[in-house]
Amino acid sequence: MPKLFILSAPSGTGKTTIAAKVLESLSGIRRVITATTRQPRPGEVNGRDYIFLSEEEFKGMMEKGEFLEYACVYGNYYGTPKSQVEENAKNGVDSLLVIDVQGAFEVKRQMPDAISVFLLPPSLEELERRIANRGFVDDNVKERLRIAKKEIPCAKKFDYVIINDFIDKAVECLKAVVLASRCSSERLEESQRALDSEVVSLIKGGECYVKET
Amino acid sequence: MPKLFILSAPSGTGKTTIAAKVLESLSGIRRVITATTRQPRPGEVNGRDYIFLSEEEFKGMMEKGEFLEYACVYGNYYGTPKSQVEENAKNGVDSLLVIDVQGAFEVKRQMPDAISVFLLPPSLEELERRIANRGFVDDNVKERLRIAKKEIPCAKKFDYVIINDFIDKAVECLKAVVLASRCSSERLEESQRALDSEVVSLIKGGECYVKET
Repeated sequence: MPKLFILSAPSGTGKTTIAAKVLESLSGIRRVITATTRQPRPGEVNGRDYIFLSEEEFKGMMEKGEFLEYACVYGNYYGTPKSQVEENAKNGVDSLLVIDVQGAFEVKRQMPDAISVFLLPPSLEELERRIANRGFVDDNVKERLRIAKKEIPCAKKFDYVIINDFIDKAVECLKAVVLASRCSSERLEESQRALDSEVVSLIKGGECYVKET
Repeated sequence: MPKLFILSAPSGTGKTTIAAKVLESLSGIRRVITATTRQPRPGEVNGRDYIFLSEEEFKGMMEKGEFLEYACVYGNYYGTPKSQVEENAKNGVDSLLVIDVQGAFEVKRQMPDAISVFLLPPSLEELERRIANRGFVDDNVKERLRIAKKEIPCAKKFDYVIINDFIDKAVECLKAVVLASRCSSERLEESQRALDSEVVSLIKGGECYVKET
């Protein structure tokens, strides 16, 4: 079965950049697009950046249990549609979800087989610089740092922790996590197109002669 | 803690080639050199290809429990020295052991934290071709194929299974397994040099504020 990869980090660590670079250079993986009721910012495209929904539409999906998780932030709803992950899996494609730390835990609880990855800033000074440099008008740097300090201790509860000190290195690590998962023995069924039918039937039906003791 | 990676496969699948290429292009990992009582073949170098021992030396190590596993094949002893893996770990270096399937199970039993990787030939025809092309005088192709058919069903008992249909792809996969392991959260301690002390102390001492429910 294809996997869901959850990429999470304190705000400003660079998870969106890392995710974009991995999606660019790796095939067979698609980003899960968050649904939201907030207004699109200039340049944001529906279905690419977010799925923009009315509050009525969003609440309808909530009631039907169509979100892996959802949250209300400053009066706007955000949610992860279950259907995208299912659709990707059906098509043999992995899913990559970029999400805040609270949401990551909720999704992992719903899908324990998902692989969770925490992206760490190398230092708080660097994180502060990155948040300030984004230059969003509504960014409250001190408040974001305060939250980051509460989120960083959660890193060890994730399956993987990647330090974003050098973007290329962090991208390589996330790609490695995805590639390694693809050759885990529990995903062997997916690789069988690359195998001759005789080898497949040996794997499926044959008995391992070696004593494991 | 650095890890021991066990690479195993039916004879002729190409595990030595794959291992060499991974060791060439990845730092922080060293091959575990097998000890043997057999005579060196032309071109083989002591300490590089094998550790060549007298039967007396070998049996002395056996008695002192200095092998992770050992076996006697056609009158010659082969064994995996525990000390190399320990030495590498002490130096912060991962270990890569290339070994037959029986030996892989024995090592995994002794070191359950080791990561086991099975290399699969894409087809039995291809395996036969590879064995024949090696052109060892003493190679009995039919016998090796018979054993391979008994080993291939063991693949699913390994942590990872890599199909060696294209060498570069197989090398990438094994590298991904090693790199992914290095950013698993259980190995976070090893990465702390890349982190500022404030971040380290948050990870170590801080409490994850997020409810996991």
